[in-house]
Amino acid sequence: MSEFPVNTWWAAALSDELGEALLARRLLGKPVLLYRTQAGDPVAMLDACPHRFASLSKGRRLGDQVECIYHGLRFDPTGACTRSPYHETRPTGIAVETFPIVDRYGIAWIWMGAREAADPATIPDHSMVMIDGYRWIAGHETYRGDWQLCVDNLMDLTHLFWLHTSTIGGYKEEAGPLPGEEYIVRQDGNRVIGRNLIPNIDKPSATGNGIPPGVTYDQWNDIVWTCPGSLTFAIQAAPAGVRKADKPYMAQTHLMTPAGEGEAHYFWAVSRSFDNEEHHDAKWQHFFGNIFRTEDAPMMEDIERNMGGRELMDLRPVILPRDRGAVMARRTIARAIAAEKEAPAIAAE
Amino acid sequence: MSEFPVNTWWAAALSDELGEALLARRLLGKPVLLYRTQAGDPVAMLDACPHRFASLSKGRRLGDQVECIYHGLRFDPTGACTRSPYHETRPTGIAVETFPIVDRYGIAWIWMGAREAADPATIPDHSMVMIDGYRWIAGHETYRGDWQLCVDNLMDLTHLFWLHTSTIGGYKEEAGPLPGEEYIVRQDGNRVIGRNLIPNIDKPSATGNGIPPGVTYDQWNDIVWTCPGSLTFAIQAAPAGVRKADKPYMAQTHLMTPAGEGEAHYFWAVSRSFDNEEHHDAKWQHFFGNIFRTEDAPMMEDIERNMGGRELMDLRPVILPRDRGAVMARRTIARAIAAEKEAPAIAAE
Amino acid sequence: MSEFPVNTWWAAALSDELGEALLARRLLGKPVLLYRTQAGDPVAMLDACPHRFASLSKGRRLGDQVECIYHGLRFDPTGACTRSPYHETRPTGIAVETFPIVDRYGIAWIWMGAREAADPATIPDHSMVMIDGYRWIAGHETYRGDWQLCVDNLMDLTHLFWLHTSTIGGYKEEAGPLPGEEYIVRQDGNRVIGRNLIPNIDKPSATGNGIPPGVTYDQWNDIVWTCPGSLTFAIQAAPAGVRKADKPYMAQTHLMTPAGEGEAHYFWAVSRSFDNEEHHDAKWQHFFGNIFRTEDAPMMEDIERNMGGRELMDLRPVILPRDRGAVMARRTIARAIAAEKEAPAIAAE
Repeated sequence: MSEFPVNTWWAAALSDELGEALLARRLLGKPVLLYRTQAGDPVAMLDACPHRFASLSKGRRLGDQVECIYHGLRFDPTGACTRSPYHETRPTGIAVETFPIVDRYGIAWIWMGAREAADPATIPDHSMVMIDGYRWIAGHETYRGDWQLCVDNLMDLTHLFWLHTSTIGGYKEEAGPLPGEEYIVRQDGNRVIGRNLIPNIDKPSATGNGIPPGVTYDQWNDIVWTCPGSLTFAIQAAPAGVRKADKPYMAQTHLMTPAGEGEAHYFWAVSRSFDNEEHHDAKWQHFFGNIFRTEDAPMMEDIERNMGGRELMDLRPVILPRDRGAVMARRTIARAIAAEKEAPAIAAE
Repeated sequence: MSEFPVNTWWAAALSDELGEALLARRLLGKPVLLYRTQAGDPVAMLDACPHRFASLSKGRRLGDQVECIYHGLRFDPTGACTRSPYHETRPTGIAVETFPIVDRYGIAWIWMGAREAADPATIPDHSMVMIDGYRWIAGHETYRGDWQLCVDNLMDLTHLFWLHTSTIGGYKEEAGPLPGEEYIVRQDGNRVIGRNLIPNIDKPSATGNGIPPGVTYDQWNDIVWTCPGSLTFAIQAAPAGVRKADKPYMAQTHLMTPAGEGEAHYFWAVSRSFDNEEHHDAKWQHFFGNIFRTEDAPMMEDIERNMGGRELMDLRPVILPRDRGAVMARRTIARAIAAEKEAPAIAAE
Repeated sequence: MSEFPVNTWWAAALSDELGEALLARRLLGKPVLLYRTQAGDPVAMLDACPHRFASLSKGRRLGDQVECIYHGLRFDPTGACTRSPYHETRPTGIAVETFPIVDRYGIAWIWMGAREAADPATIPDHSMVMIDGYRWIAGHETYRGDWQLCVDNLMDLTHLFWLHTSTIGGYKEEAGPLPGEEYIVRQDGNRVIGRNLIPNIDKPSATGNGIPPGVTYDQWNDIVWTCPGSLTFAIQAAPAGVRKADKPYMAQTHLMTPAGEGEAHYFWAVSRSFDNEEHHDAKWQHFFGNIFRTEDAPMMEDIERNMGGRELMDLRPVILPRDRGAVMARRTIARAIAAEKEAPAIAAE
């Protein structure tokens, strides 16, 4: 696991994953217990009782509280111990660490850094993925590799034309830039904003993009990466030359979170205008999840092994023209980590 | 594997496990070969030929000797090399390390420290577990966790009412101390001696305790822990208020031994007065072994992961009222380890 | 993995393993891609694209070139990048590391050290294994253990009479040297040359040695080890006392190559005079491969565990009379490693 900033919001789960059940998940190298109160609020606490470090997720839920299965300590959603059976009075000073956690955009965002700096206003903006009238689906995957490898992966979408030739990329004998293709990318504070545009496409979209058959079109993807692990894609199409769409025909959320050593979480969500009925959800759920599991995850696991635990930049990689966005992201992450080391108690933005 | 004292007797095996076959077992981080001579004496030696470190346990037994399967070196039970085929005369100065090993209380006890300090008189006393006329059964289990986690586990038996609710502990919505419950514990040299007493029980015992149906009774367990990994339990019952039993209705041996990194052995034995016929042995053998395998071992494996290889005390655990015995044991072990570091050649008490 | 010299030729593969397919193999701790050009020349390059370290072996072969499946970089057999799709002109200065690789004696030999020192004239001589009119078979195995353990194994063939009693060694209640048995061994530069001779054998050979039934014979094996991982065996027989054979009845190649941490390759080849028809090849292929997989490999894996990652000599092993050759080899290897540390850019002899 490479280093990572902690004073930031990370995706802990899909909001739909949290409910009555006690969910155990490793996040930022720590065991975390996730559940939802009866009122519906998400709860995140260290999944280790402060007494003997038993996993609270193996325990019993009593209303909104959790009881450790080892010696019966009970904790409420604030982490306070509400019962220690062999104490004569209710104990003070016993608590399990909890973490701020907020539902937004279908994601449960966790803050595992300095608590006083946790401001939900700094949760990355994924509002553009929630489009009225579109079907929204989401998924959670893991892979055995560093979390930044998937940031790199998503920041250079030319990989679609080699890694994903049999699924979303489409096969071409000689893939490469097309006449008029545009790639722009710029830094904006803790974000990197880019656009990939491919003009004059005459074959149908792999998914469905609203362009009538026979009409040549341009397609572009507006990408916003927010430090450290958040990306939104707004994928748009318009008849050739128009260069403007009312709204994306598909919008995507991509979120990476460090798990444990050499392991990372990947959360994704897609809003789609095509196949816009519920009974098509399962097909697209499988389509997007399966691409990650069979094409991206094996690639990142290979790279993890080939890098042998070393940092990417220490290996002096060749930098290609389309790496500008990925390099901006890597440098922004490195600065965020360095800033935390200098002033660990001050929140990063 | 946390540290451990070496100048002490550790349980290597159930005595019944040793026989004609060559048994390989990892003890205190070393490979050990265990067997029994034709006269019935237990033998323990390093399970690595001093020539090329082949496992002697893969070799051939010739009478009381063992022949290495790699190049034919033979060793007698003292560890002396009795034949090196390509030496012209019987070699001198070739030997495999052996370890004192003694059968007592149904257990084969091994001494892997400074040989001159190995005094069988210091084997922990389990004579109270061997009760005339009682059925005695025993088992060997392993778990992936530090050996001290099981000492902690057994020193705080309140875990019965949470971890073992479906087996020996019994389920209560609100488990906790009962009126008149007693917990006493005291240090006595390298031992910790305690009693847990629960008064005025009116439901039947999970096993059978000799109290007639309908009679309210008190039940108590006299516990002796001996540094580093030995416990005896004398579990007794008497009609309420009598507070005295001729003898335990059940007595137990519990022994922990470090195996390798993050792995430990657990040996147990139970003498019982109930179901006191041989054909009931298999049922109780399964009952006690299965509780460990399905309830205790998974708990300790969880804790091992949650502790991430760190020392318990370095994690600053919350100390509860019923941890007094466990803390006394941890401190005694730490003192024994420290004493060996100061004077490694002097036997521990 | 113990240390190893790098300025030397190591066996990378059987020549027959290389062809149109992209073969991934870990050698000397590095991922290596192996294939053969359309003209039949072997190619070896780092199996990690210099851009993002994707495995080139997962890519697409285009003529003699390889295209990375991640972002489409193409490399020719010299390692030069011939296409970077998003560069406006053919890129200069992008290359993947390649390694000299040479077919000889049915083996593809790789040089992973200082390139300027790679002289095929220093490939160990296995010409004596290629015998006109003999059937030649070969195999590739791996084991989880240090590469030098198999050098040790082959340098002391007395292990045949214990480890291989059920296959090539033959079972004797009291194995050991026979009257007149000879063992000579001497150092010759970076080689160790030895002979094992067993006189007056009256039982048939395990394989077939050309001696008529009923004739008592002598059998001897002329061994040449070349630093670091190469051995040839010339196994010969003649009626008792003759001590001379026109040619071996069987000749063998044995080659060890470090793979990754605690893992090694073993390549073998056998030329035989007996069963000298193609339809017998499969039987002997199974015979020799199976001995290694079921007898030698488990032995070396046991030893690897028992040594716990330490160097053999640091464990102060007992040295037996028949260890002279193995000790000479160990010392020669240690000198080669030390010489490279002093002058890393100068080729070893």
